Amino acid sequence: MRIALGIEYNGALFKGWQSQIGVRTVQDVLEKALAKVADHPVRVITAGRTDTGVHAVGQVVHFESDSARDDYAWRRGTNSYLPHDVRVTWAAGVIDEFHARFSAISRSYRYIVYCSRVGSAIYYHHACVDYRDLRLDPMRKAALHLVGKHDFSSFRASGCQAKSPVRSVMSIEVGQSGNWYWIDVQANAFLQHMVRNFAGVLLSIGAGEQPVDWTRTLLDSVDRTRGGVTGPPQGLYLTSVGYPESFDLPTPSLTVRFWD
Amino acid sequence: MRIALGIEYNGALFKGWQSQIGVRTVQDVLEKALAKVADHPVRVITAGRTDTGVHAVGQVVHFESDSARDDYAWRRGTNSYLPHDVRVTWAAGVIDEFHARFSAISRSYRYIVYCSRVGSAIYYHHACVDYRDLRLDPMRKAALHLVGKHDFSSFRASGCQAKSPVRSVMSIEVGQSGNWYWIDVQANAFLQHMVRNFAGVLLSIGAGEQPVDWTRTLLDSVDRTRGGVTGPPQGLYLTSVGYPESFDLPTPSLTVRFWD
Repeated sequence: MRIALGIEYNGALFKGWQSQIGVRTVQDVLEKALAKVADHPVRVITAGRTDTGVHAVGQVVHFESDSARDDYAWRRGTNSYLPHDVRVTWAAGVIDEFHARFSAISRSYRYIVYCSRVGSAIYYHHACVDYRDLRLDPMRKAALHLVGKHDFSSFRASGCQAKSPVRSVMSIEVGQSGNWYWIDVQANAFLQHMVRNFAGVLLSIGAGEQPVDWTRTLLDSVDRTRGGVTGPPQGLYLTSVGYPESFDLPTPSLTVRFWD
Repeated sequence: MRIALGIEYNGALFKGWQSQIGVRTVQDVLEKALAKVADHPVRVITAGRTDTGVHAVGQVVHFESDSARDDYAWRRGTNSYLPHDVRVTWAAGVIDEFHARFSAISRSYRYIVYCSRVGSAIYYHHACVDYRDLRLDPMRKAALHLVGKHDFSSFRASGCQAKSPVRSVMSIEVGQSGNWYWIDVQANAFLQHMVRNFAGVLLSIGAGEQPVDWTRTLLDSVDRTRGGVTGPPQGLYLTSVGYPESFDLPTPSLTVRFWD
């Protein structure tokens, strides 16, 4: 039968999601733990791979197993074999039509920025530090240009392997509390580095180095080489993956926030 | 002349504050960076040592140097030599009467608990995880017994080297938001493990394993062997050190919180 899992991980000590020989990846660590519980090799399918250093609180995977384990045993047993920087937050038997990647109708990311000339020892692995003075209003206005169905070629990594550069951004919200800024983005799917490139561009606009309509200019240019600095990975969190309600999956309960 | 510094550190990868041969400590890392900026060996005096794994956002130290550096150079220069898990948050020339330890009139700590059966990959180094169902009201009532001037022998580590077990606790506040609990304690000074023992005892009371007046019973027994479990270090933050206003020191700006 098919089982879906909610996964939380701290990306700091991982070379990203995808299985690789000779380095520590979330997929390898998870599959190894699941194999011990299942008593057979397990291959997981993820809703979306994340890069080195990127975190997740709402990652979703599915896998196949005929071993007789209930949802509690899958969650509890797997956690007992996992290192502390990966947790199974929920497990649920699903129908065979469920596919972690192809059934997903949206992905949501949060990008967190700590604005400080000193940086932060406490949050070093948990946020992007920006030394500039940022203004919220230009970032909010610039973000609006990114909402909608666009060719996001100017915001993809040079090595991005997606066939089409077109994605539908459902919403972008930029928030601020004291020295903290955050960017919440929901889209049907993302190109590689898309959120980090959004962040890099919006932060340059917030710092007054670029005009508010730079997001529009970049979109129209359809040219990655004209884009901005890619935001560092430690500020990025995959917060949730959306599926049709008919699958009735649990939702992540942890909200990542470091401010009032 | 004498210079005071505000220090922030993530305790996860340190064997505590105090200088030790063969292991990584905050004091050693800080003194090494300061020596490079000062161009001579530097010995720092701290407001209070912290144990392995304990964090600080408001640690204070002082040291002596006749090198001609302004406050900005001490902060900026030292940070350029420090690893990312230690930051100098401010630097200020002080009068010779200032002493980071002996001038301090209070210390404040925050102990953070994430209540979850799963734990948290994101916050593993940043909070204590408690698997039990906790109730706020008994913890708040039990904490009130600890306020005031008492012999805290029941809440000190067996290896604690303080001459007197008497301390004055000015306030303890227990807060909750969703799955997060926190305990804020201010005292003139602390015995070793005192906040972590407060946390261990209050959490047992919050979980219903001990009555609300257990804090009173333990205080009266003046006997460490009757105490509770010591809370793990990763939940503990030294948040600030209080000095007479006449010294006119900066105060830390970062508040550690992971909840609304």
